[in-house]
Amino acid sequence: METVPKEEIEKRISRFQAQLVAGSLDGAFILQNADLFYFSGTIQTAVLFVPAKGDPILMVQKNHERAQLESSLNHVIAVKNKNRIPQVLNDFKFDQIAAAGLEMDVLPTNLYLWFQQTLPSCRWADISGIIRKLRMRKTDYEINQIEKATAILHTGLTQIKSVIREGMTELEIDGHLAMIARREGHMGTLRMRGWNQEMTYAHVLSGDSGSTVSLLNSPHGGTGNTPAMAQGAGFRRIKKNEPIGIDYGVAINGYVGDQFRTYVIGDLSDPLKKAYACARDILSLLTEKAQVGVRCAELYAAAVAKANEEGLGDFFMGYGAGQVKFIGHGIGLEIDEYPVISPHFDAVLEKNMVLALEPKFVFPQKGVVGLEDDYQVTSNGLRRLTRTDQDLIQI
Amino acid sequence: METVPKEEIEKRISRFQAQLVAGSLDGAFILQNADLFYFSGTIQTAVLFVPAKGDPILMVQKNHERAQLESSLNHVIAVKNKNRIPQVLNDFKFDQIAAAGLEMDVLPTNLYLWFQQTLPSCRWADISGIIRKLRMRKTDYEINQIEKATAILHTGLTQIKSVIREGMTELEIDGHLAMIARREGHMGTLRMRGWNQEMTYAHVLSGDSGSTVSLLNSPHGGTGNTPAMAQGAGFRRIKKNEPIGIDYGVAINGYVGDQFRTYVIGDLSDPLKKAYACARDILSLLTEKAQVGVRCAELYAAAVAKANEEGLGDFFMGYGAGQVKFIGHGIGLEIDEYPVISPHFDAVLEKNMVLALEPKFVFPQKGVVGLEDDYQVTSNGLRRLTRTDQDLIQI
Repeated sequence: METVPKEEIEKRISRFQAQLVAGSLDGAFILQNADLFYFSGTIQTAVLFVPAKGDPILMVQKNHERAQLESSLNHVIAVKNKNRIPQVLNDFKFDQIAAAGLEMDVLPTNLYLWFQQTLPSCRWADISGIIRKLRMRKTDYEINQIEKATAILHTGLTQIKSVIREGMTELEIDGHLAMIARREGHMGTLRMRGWNQEMTYAHVLSGDSGSTVSLLNSPHGGTGNTPAMAQGAGFRRIKKNEPIGIDYGVAINGYVGDQFRTYVIGDLSDPLKKAYACARDILSLLTEKAQVGVRCAELYAAAVAKANEEGLGDFFMGYGAGQVKFIGHGIGLEIDEYPVISPHFDAVLEKNMVLALEPKFVFPQKGVVGLEDDYQVTSNGLRRLTRTDQDLIQI
Repeated sequence: METVPKEEIEKRISRFQAQLVAGSLDGAFILQNADLFYFSGTIQTAVLFVPAKGDPILMVQKNHERAQLESSLNHVIAVKNKNRIPQVLNDFKFDQIAAAGLEMDVLPTNLYLWFQQTLPSCRWADISGIIRKLRMRKTDYEINQIEKATAILHTGLTQIKSVIREGMTELEIDGHLAMIARREGHMGTLRMRGWNQEMTYAHVLSGDSGSTVSLLNSPHGGTGNTPAMAQGAGFRRIKKNEPIGIDYGVAINGYVGDQFRTYVIGDLSDPLKKAYACARDILSLLTEKAQVGVRCAELYAAAVAKANEEGLGDFFMGYGAGQVKFIGHGIGLEIDEYPVISPHFDAVLEKNMVLALEPKFVFPQKGVVGLEDDYQVTSNGLRRLTRTDQDLIQI
């Protein structure tokens, strides 16, 4: 099994420590799976203490043996009961923690209160923003993992073409995509950071289910087959000459690939074909404009301007109350990473960010058309990590 | 699409309100998907205020239209920005909230701090225990949903028998189970309440991967194919004459069914067959003993005594540090519901609890054998909700 290289972990910890020093924090406690994996190489149940200076300590509740095999950190300690954490910190001479960071965007309240009670003289700061910004810029190792995921996306999106038939339900297609993903090594979950956000392996949205607005921060969400999930594929049967939008995600060694393609049995109406061509043009435009130093808001504005030029602005990235204000997002250990390509996200593109760009049009009752590909920001512009042809896929 | 009946929601709210009154709370704010669905019938992004007396108010950020269709509550209000919540509470004359409950076991810290800041004179209490205890006892409607899920489990566990072949990877089998689950209507996720606990559709654990201890609170966890997930199926190829443990979960309209069966191509060694027989005997014993009023700890002790009697105590529910101290758990909207059939869970069986009972033996290097079925507690003892034959499944 592939573990995270020691030099990766060291680089990440050292960049994080620089931020802790800059924020006048004595250290940070890391608990959430994606962050824990990023900084330690394991998700075995543990609390990771990263001091502003010195070696991190991974205090493992379960399973210590596996954590030792998986993590290259020097201090991987069995701490069955978390009430022993202050003692372990003392043993390592971290007995003067006056200010420390916590992942307050995801850490449950009871754990926060436990930290308050356990280290009563400590001041607590939210370090989730710092971590999310650190994780924006990927290393070559991380980009390689994402490319492994996109290779599987390509396999799935190609093979599913020969599976889709008129009269089949969305759920049958979704099931096939799940089967392919797992067979090829998808780790089994797509992590999202957002509170209450949940993700299935795929969204298969045919005809009007592609235009159903959902709770997700996405232009499409689908009906699903129950309000208990309220997204994704349902029992709707695939018809001829309607768009079938497939959003597909796969994660390899933690890293997510995220791709969307539009399929049709037969052909689309001229307005939908025109919208698809416009989505593709917008993606070309974005890949030209997306250079290091360009503002996220500027990219968003260029995409919206192009959609408006074609008279399609009302349907770009959703319609009415369902319209979302972004055209792309970072991917990595989570599917909703920074940066967000949005008017509200105040940042410029940096080298080795990885972006999922997803221009889409949604038409009431008719469905969703568009595409999504993953890109690495390089000093020569964008490099595409996904490999599927960008045409509308006709069956 | 099936929505939760109005009378269900009314019953749940009224039982909850009695608990709020008993706890001297003026109300509670519900945000987490499973709880939100339980009390409102929708998971559209929202904050639900349940007053100790009077009609609940569902304040919906996204998507209001869908929330209105899905929820039978009288007050389903669009509140785009959550900062407007105090105003809405005022409008409904709830302007004197001195003490209120929050789901502090799952609510992220930043949301807790937001509530503190937004209603500064309010005292906050953790109501997660109250909610989990309320949800222990199911209605006929809920039990019916769980039975729909167990019907799909039976389909999958039966059909997979003709799929399993020597040399196939665990992941291929997992993928097939995912395909069947989705095709039949599995909603796409299995919710767990525990912090950082994640779940795939199935665990397919062959030979020694069945004896790999994991971070999960489970006797088995599997290797997975990456430390980023660290559980479930991996690329290990199925061999003859070794146990293949399959733990399978499906959720219908939110409600989880959870089942485990042991498969083998060929036959198991005598010690493993003896252990399987013992697991089955323990399940029979539990179904005899599990009457309304029996203590959870007593059931656990009876199971352990039986395992010890057969000289198998060291391998019951795991071995060494991986041994877990329970033999069953509640299921419902989450897979880790109350009660826990454990020496540490201080409760007695009540009518209409639904239990997943899972006696298993884990042998180092050899794997996991055992079975798991779902039961309703009735006034005449347990009623089995799963329908698969309880023999070892030989291929």
